[in-house]
Amino acid sequence: MKLVPLGDRVVIKQLEAEEMTKSGIVLPGQAKEKPQEAEVVAVGPGGMVDGKEVAMQVKPGDKIIYSKYAGTEVKLEGEMYIIVKQGDILAIVE
Amino acid sequence: MKLVPLGDRVVIKQLEAEEMTKSGIVLPGQAKEKPQEAEVVAVGPGGMVDGKEVAMQVKPGDKIIYSKYAGTEVKLEGEMYIIVKQGDILAIVE
Amino acid sequence: MKLVPLGDRVVIKQLEAEEMTKSGIVLPGQAKEKPQEAEVVAVGPGGMVDGKEVAMQVKPGDKIIYSKYAGTEVKLEGEMYIIVKQGDILAIVE
Amino acid sequence: MKLVPLGDRVVIKQLEAEEMTKSGIVLPGQAKEKPQEAEVVAVGPGGMVDGKEVAMQVKPGDKIIYSKYAGTEVKLEGEMYIIVKQGDILAIVE
Amino acid sequence: MKLVPLGDRVVIKQLEAEEMTKSGIVLPGQAKEKPQEAEVVAVGPGGMVDGKEVAMQVKPGDKIIYSKYAGTEVKLEGEMYIIVKQGDILAIVE
Amino acid sequence: MKLVPLGDRVVIKQLEAEEMTKSGIVLPGQAKEKPQEAEVVAVGPGGMVDGKEVAMQVKPGDKIIYSKYAGTEVKLEGEMYIIVKQGDILAIVE
Amino acid sequence: MKLVPLGDRVVIKQLEAEEMTKSGIVLPGQAKEKPQEAEVVAVGPGGMVDGKEVAMQVKPGDKIIYSKYAGTEVKLEGEMYIIVKQGDILAIVE
Repeated sequence: MKLVPLGDRVVIKQLEAEEMTKSGIVLPGQAKEKPQEAEVVAVGPGGMVDGKEVAMQVKPGDKIIYSKYAGTEVKLEGEMYIIVKQGDILAIVE
Repeated sequence: MKLVPLGDRVVIKQLEAEEMTKSGIVLPGQAKEKPQEAEVVAVGPGGMVDGKEVAMQVKPGDKIIYSKYAGTEVKLEGEMYIIVKQGDILAIVE
Repeated sequence: MKLVPLGDRVVIKQLEAEEMTKSGIVLPGQAKEKPQEAEVVAVGPGGMVDGKEVAMQVKPGDKIIYSKYAGTEVKLEGEMYIIVKQGDILAIVE
Repeated sequence: MKLVPLGDRVVIKQLEAEEMTKSGIVLPGQAKEKPQEAEVVAVGPGGMVDGKEVAMQVKPGDKIIYSKYAGTEVKLEGEMYIIVKQGDILAIVE
Repeated sequence: MKLVPLGDRVVIKQLEAEEMTKSGIVLPGQAKEKPQEAEVVAVGPGGMVDGKEVAMQVKPGDKIIYSKYAGTEVKLEGEMYIIVKQGDILAIVE
Repeated sequence: MKLVPLGDRVVIKQLEAEEMTKSGIVLPGQAKEKPQEAEVVAVGPGGMVDGKEVAMQVKPGDKIIYSKYAGTEVKLEGEMYIIVKQGDILAIVE
Repeated sequence: MKLVPLGDRVVIKQLEAEEMTKSGIVLPGQAKEKPQEAEVVAVGPGGMVDGKEVAMQVKPGDKIIYSKYAGTEVKLEGEMYIIVKQGDILAIVE
């Protein structure tokens, strides 16, 4: 059983957040938008999305940074995934 | 008697949500947007919708994940359906 | 005396809502958007509406489901009509 | 002295609202959007309005239904007029 | 010293409002949008404004009706002017 | 050291506001949008900005009127500048 | 390990803000939008972003002024970065 995202959507799996400063103090981050590290699990076909041509730029296995509140949490066979639009992915971590 | 959706709309029928963790504790999910599993019942013709060309990517029988608050509940002959726009369907579950 | 809708507008006449479950308990529906059954009375010419080409897909006599709060109630010779945009019609009931 | 509307604007003159039911009880209508009957007095030239081509579909003398809160009241030589955009005219009453 | 408006902006000079009814009672108007009579002082070149082609339809000396809250008051050499976008001019008074 | 604005942005330097009436009474202006006089210091290249072609119409040395709350204050080497988009410049004062 | 921004995004590293007046008094700035000085670390490829062609105009090493609340803070290997869209960069400091 697997999730096949539509349009410009991307299925990701969250990595454990590292929000510690060097000294070990927890850093609260921005209240309104909490960036998150995740791994790409599945990528939609892109193409015409909301009247705009979208080319997909991430692939399964990529480690990415995304804006947390943009995504939707989905549970499948005991595993938790997040479905985001590619535009909510800020950067790839290489 | 049946529902024939217009434009990029899709008639779906909700499946019973499985929001249990492995240990059996109910998972509350995100307060603002509750993902849902549903089965596609009928699909609109797509085409020009709100000035944008839309190609339909789901078909009757598909199991899908959608954003709950985007849809409208409709009751027909004692059965409850939800009408969503295709853009509110996040992924197909295969 | 009759209503001739402009653009992509449609004049409809509400049917008595059936919001009973099989057991006869009234179903409250969604607070924010109450779907409604109605019959199409008159259909605008469509064409260029707000800079977008709209083709009309409903015709007088069609039974339809629409989003209630999108329409405007109009009283003409003691009869109550609702004028909606075609985009607020969710599905045709066949 | 007369009002010459610009773009897709239409000068209308409100008719006395008939909001009585057959039994004579005043019908309050919708709180947020009160439809109104009016007569068209003057019609703008249409053409390119806000980057969109608009063709005027009403003419002086037409009796129309419009959404009240969209218009702006203007007083000229003791007479009260309302200036609306054509898109706020819902239907012509014939 | 003079104001040369940019794009689709128009410099106007407010005329004293006549908001009396025939009987001499002051008419309060709409709270949210107070129409105003003014004279056009200077007119921008129009052309490409915010990605849309705008043709100027008013000229210096025109008496116009505009939506008050859309404009910005500017004081120059003891005189008060208002700068509005042409789209905020509702009609020319002839 | 100097500021080189991007896109349709313009660096301006505020002139001391003259908000006195002839009689010397301070004029409060509009609460929501306070117009300001400023001198243009640097002008962005224009071109494609947010998907729209923008031609720059002001040049360094121009005295302009702008909408205050649209700009961002920047301090450089003890001098205070404001960076606005050209669309927030209402008129040139000649 | 490095951040590779997608689309029109830019990874920047904040410089210590100098918000002192000549006299040494702290200047509070605007409450809603606090401009910031930063250095560009990495630049996205640009291209088609949200249906609009974007050409990147900054390069790694550029000192820039940006609108603070537009960005998202990201922590990588103990270093704090900010990811902004190029449109949130106001000017280059040369």
